[in-house]
Amino acid sequence: MTQRRMRLLTVETILDAALVCIDESGQLTMTELAKKLGTTASSVYHHLDGRAAIIEALRERVLSAVELPLMDSSSWDVQIRSWMHSFRHAMAQHPNLIPLAMEQTITAGRALVGYDRIAGLLQAAGVAPKYVIVWLSVLECYALGSALDLAAPDEAWRVGREDLPTLSNALELASRGRQRADEAFELGVDALLLGLRTRLEMHR
Amino acid sequence: MTQRRMRLLTVETILDAALVCIDESGQLTMTELAKKLGTTASSVYHHLDGRAAIIEALRERVLSAVELPLMDSSSWDVQIRSWMHSFRHAMAQHPNLIPLAMEQTITAGRALVGYDRIAGLLQAAGVAPKYVIVWLSVLECYALGSALDLAAPDEAWRVGREDLPTLSNALELASRGRQRADEAFELGVDALLLGLRTRLEMHR
Repeated sequence: MTQRRMRLLTVETILDAALVCIDESGQLTMTELAKKLGTTASSVYHHLDGRAAIIEALRERVLSAVELPLMDSSSWDVQIRSWMHSFRHAMAQHPNLIPLAMEQTITAGRALVGYDRIAGLLQAAGVAPKYVIVWLSVLECYALGSALDLAAPDEAWRVGREDLPTLSNALELASRGRQRADEAFELGVDALLLGLRTRLEMHR
Repeated sequence: MTQRRMRLLTVETILDAALVCIDESGQLTMTELAKKLGTTASSVYHHLDGRAAIIEALRERVLSAVELPLMDSSSWDVQIRSWMHSFRHAMAQHPNLIPLAMEQTITAGRALVGYDRIAGLLQAAGVAPKYVIVWLSVLECYALGSALDLAAPDEAWRVGREDLPTLSNALELASRGRQRADEAFELGVDALLLGLRTRLEMHR
């Protein structure tokens, strides 16, 4: 039995189990992971160099579903928008991975290719090279915050008091659930790109 | 000893312990919480009506540090900006609470007052009542994504390959660590508010 388990222990089976750990509990410890795999932490280390390496491999796996933006400078905003959609969608499948992934340096290869393309598109739009990383951070923060927002319940706010008429009224008129989250995401991406474009024009 | 523990079990001590659980492990289970308090889950239920109630009380506690925006329509953008700062700062103290708080309906009283004021400011700016909630969602997603970004390491990206010159060059020129995160946050808030203002003017 032990031999069979040892034979089945591959990078892929470890990553599968690690993602289940994170999805279920919001955390990843080598002890819990080894337990789930029916093996020891040192056997896991034989395949993957610890917790950070596993989280990085999971970032790579989850973001491999994200379509790489085309380096088409004539449609930089379309390309950025489409990457943000795809990025949010991929991360929203594993919301518990988001805080863990944000805590560590991004080194995952294909993920970096995506960021490199977005960096190129921002430069093509007219962003000065020294501001490219802060813009990349802005887009990422918004996409990840919005990915977490997809886990919100249908009723995101509930006002059980009489003294907040503005919020109560707004909630009565507003869309709910997935529709609210999707509309908000679109609106925010629109506003960010419009803000970026207006800013670039002001400095031209 | 048991009696002493029972006497010490108050809403406040439960919330203290729950926040430690979340900060440490990124999750909250009634079993773990009771264990940390040296009591039983049913004793905890005697004070607070379960996990959701505890997370809601923690939202209230953490957001009680956020200054309520003034209902000054002449400076709606200043008020919104200042609330976003304060909101991001408060949530960034407990990043692990963010995904848990986003998963459930917001009912915490003082938190709702803050949202009600922002809703009022958005309406004062010219946002139609039926779009107030989506705008509130946009601002919240960005503030929460940015709060998580404060947990990023000094080196947020590392390119260990030759074929991504745009990203490599951008990283060399960019600020790092806390400065990167803060500059990005300001830039994003600027862009969102500029995008909102431009949009409102276009529809006027």
